[in-house]
Amino acid sequence: MTTPQEDSKKQRSQKLAALPLREELRGQEPYGAPQLTVPAMLNVNETTYDVPADVVEAITEQVRRAATELNRYPDREFTALREKLAHYLSRESSLEAPLSAESIWAANGSNEIMQHIFQAFAGPGRSVLSFPPTYSMYPLYARGTYSDYIAGEREEDFTQSPESVAQQIRAHRPNVVILCSPNNPTGTALSLDVVEAAYEAGEDSQAMVIVDEAYGEFRQQGTPSALELLPGRERLIVSRTMSKAFALAGGRLGYLAAAPEVADALRLVRLPYHLSAVTQAAAEAALDHSQALMANVERIKTQRDRIVSELGEMGLDPKPSDANFVFFGGLQDEKTAWQHLLEDGILIRDVGIPRHLRVTAGTEEETTSFLESLRQHLAAESPRAAARG
Amino acid sequence: MTTPQEDSKKQRSQKLAALPLREELRGQEPYGAPQLTVPAMLNVNETTYDVPADVVEAITEQVRRAATELNRYPDREFTALREKLAHYLSRESSLEAPLSAESIWAANGSNEIMQHIFQAFAGPGRSVLSFPPTYSMYPLYARGTYSDYIAGEREEDFTQSPESVAQQIRAHRPNVVILCSPNNPTGTALSLDVVEAAYEAGEDSQAMVIVDEAYGEFRQQGTPSALELLPGRERLIVSRTMSKAFALAGGRLGYLAAAPEVADALRLVRLPYHLSAVTQAAAEAALDHSQALMANVERIKTQRDRIVSELGEMGLDPKPSDANFVFFGGLQDEKTAWQHLLEDGILIRDVGIPRHLRVTAGTEEETTSFLESLRQHLAAESPRAAARG
Repeated sequence: MTTPQEDSKKQRSQKLAALPLREELRGQEPYGAPQLTVPAMLNVNETTYDVPADVVEAITEQVRRAATELNRYPDREFTALREKLAHYLSRESSLEAPLSAESIWAANGSNEIMQHIFQAFAGPGRSVLSFPPTYSMYPLYARGTYSDYIAGEREEDFTQSPESVAQQIRAHRPNVVILCSPNNPTGTALSLDVVEAAYEAGEDSQAMVIVDEAYGEFRQQGTPSALELLPGRERLIVSRTMSKAFALAGGRLGYLAAAPEVADALRLVRLPYHLSAVTQAAAEAALDHSQALMANVERIKTQRDRIVSELGEMGLDPKPSDANFVFFGGLQDEKTAWQHLLEDGILIRDVGIPRHLRVTAGTEEETTSFLESLRQHLAAESPRAAARG
Repeated sequence: MTTPQEDSKKQRSQKLAALPLREELRGQEPYGAPQLTVPAMLNVNETTYDVPADVVEAITEQVRRAATELNRYPDREFTALREKLAHYLSRESSLEAPLSAESIWAANGSNEIMQHIFQAFAGPGRSVLSFPPTYSMYPLYARGTYSDYIAGEREEDFTQSPESVAQQIRAHRPNVVILCSPNNPTGTALSLDVVEAAYEAGEDSQAMVIVDEAYGEFRQQGTPSALELLPGRERLIVSRTMSKAFALAGGRLGYLAAAPEVADALRLVRLPYHLSAVTQAAAEAALDHSQALMANVERIKTQRDRIVSELGEMGLDPKPSDANFVFFGGLQDEKTAWQHLLEDGILIRDVGIPRHLRVTAGTEEETTSFLESLRQHLAAESPRAAARG
């Protein structure tokens, strides 16, 4: 065993190839956006506002209390946390029938939420359907659980109709369907009739239908959450995360709401004590301050709407956004635009779709920098576009 | 969807059965020891000493610093944590060739460490061999990753010989072998020749050999760690945890040391950002105080040796222990002994082996309570035993 300093990247990859790795992992690269440090990091849809000082203090004090008992295993059922999440969700979506703590499940990020669902309801010999372009982790959850992955189709403008979704589910008979609403990277929320159509079409193959609402809190006024559809639908799961609206990406807390028996199913596959006492403490403290954190959500939505509006004025093609990011087309070349922005200290996301990029809605200052840098790029690229802007 | 309060346990299990759960999960129960609160909780091998005040303070302050940046995703490579773990392990086991940070991998408890290893090197169509009675999660990691599980055999006195281990590996040709040293629940460490024999026997089937040293810090003076065997053995993995010696069961931090390419393999199956910034912060703070925490390890070892000695004097059959617990046989009926102890406020572990129980070495007071209660039970059960004691 040599020290890594002695190994070139090529040597490391030869050594990796010499290990008895599973065949499907050979030649693969680890998932992950580049972690660069630049003035405006608008590439992974984090909340770019600082964590409010009183939230930092609350998290610190809650962790201090938890730390005195860290010699003990944590509450395997994270009861207090589930109660707070149920209460929060019921209020956030103004649910007529409030959710009970038994309807909630949580894990280390919605990554692990999805892994639990796939382990229980997909896995070898079973299949998962989602609709690209969508969150790029979905096929990787499938690979990690040895599930077959089926790439469904969207309309040309990236939207989804109830008819098309239902037809594809009937054709493929998947065991798990993922609807991403608002969709990442395209940003638009689904209307509930798409979710209803997916659920009904999944009756035949007894498909579990997940609505991934990671960005749910940023939806436009009047857009409902799929949480409203839960009563009477035992195969429906709505997943959320504290990474975005709660500004807690570093805290890794994903959760879901569903019928209580879905949580019972996930108890069979979760690793015992999967949620540490410090994770539970930090998440509980943030939930106690949800109103303060939601004030930032409103500020972010304002910048998001501003981005959509100004990109339209520049002659680009931004998609309607219910998220904390905007997906836009109409670029001559997304790679040179991305590079120009980076040189101005602004990191956004190239999601691999020609002529399109995705930008996180940050602070007012960050948004201004982004819009100005992009405007300059368009002007340099084409004097006509500058005249339009 | 009814609220859970309305559901009896039977109703919930009928509702669970109506979901499209994978067949192998049907009728299963979630893993986990009962979480009862009694004066002496000696059932899950936690450190029963309070977390030292300066460690609580260090964890709190490190989390405070991390909390200001929780809006951002954590360091996906947990570089600072890996450096501290490499440094700690190298010193703890007085390694001639210090480990580099690249040789370290960490996850949410050694549960997740094992899941990562199984995902990369076992999985469907591949098999895992361990040697019961041993840690009861091993078959569940196999189930969770759809790997075949093979139960190997031990000698009658629960020990393992190099010859027997090698013969079983050659016969079963597993993809992953787990040696638990010291073994849970029996408590005894393996000599390194067993590990060497397992590694050599695994050459043919290219088996990854894991030595689970969850209780490694409690080993008897002179018992070496399998860490010494890592140089030149790319299929060898030594796993550790901060749950036991570091009194950090609630912090959920498992880790391993291996060739750097093993960590590269696990990067392909880990969920991105699997270790939260608060988990990294808490673990780093505890590592900064490892010397203070190791003082408790010495106190626990003293109580552990006392338990072995006094149980022997009572006419029972305690196994030699390199762990923070003692496994003992010679009971007339382990269920009545367990119940007697519980009625005295002492919770220990019935691991399902007739006439045997397992007890965690706690504080001096807890150990005294346990020994006195057990002595009374034996006296009540058999006047002869009392005379012997």
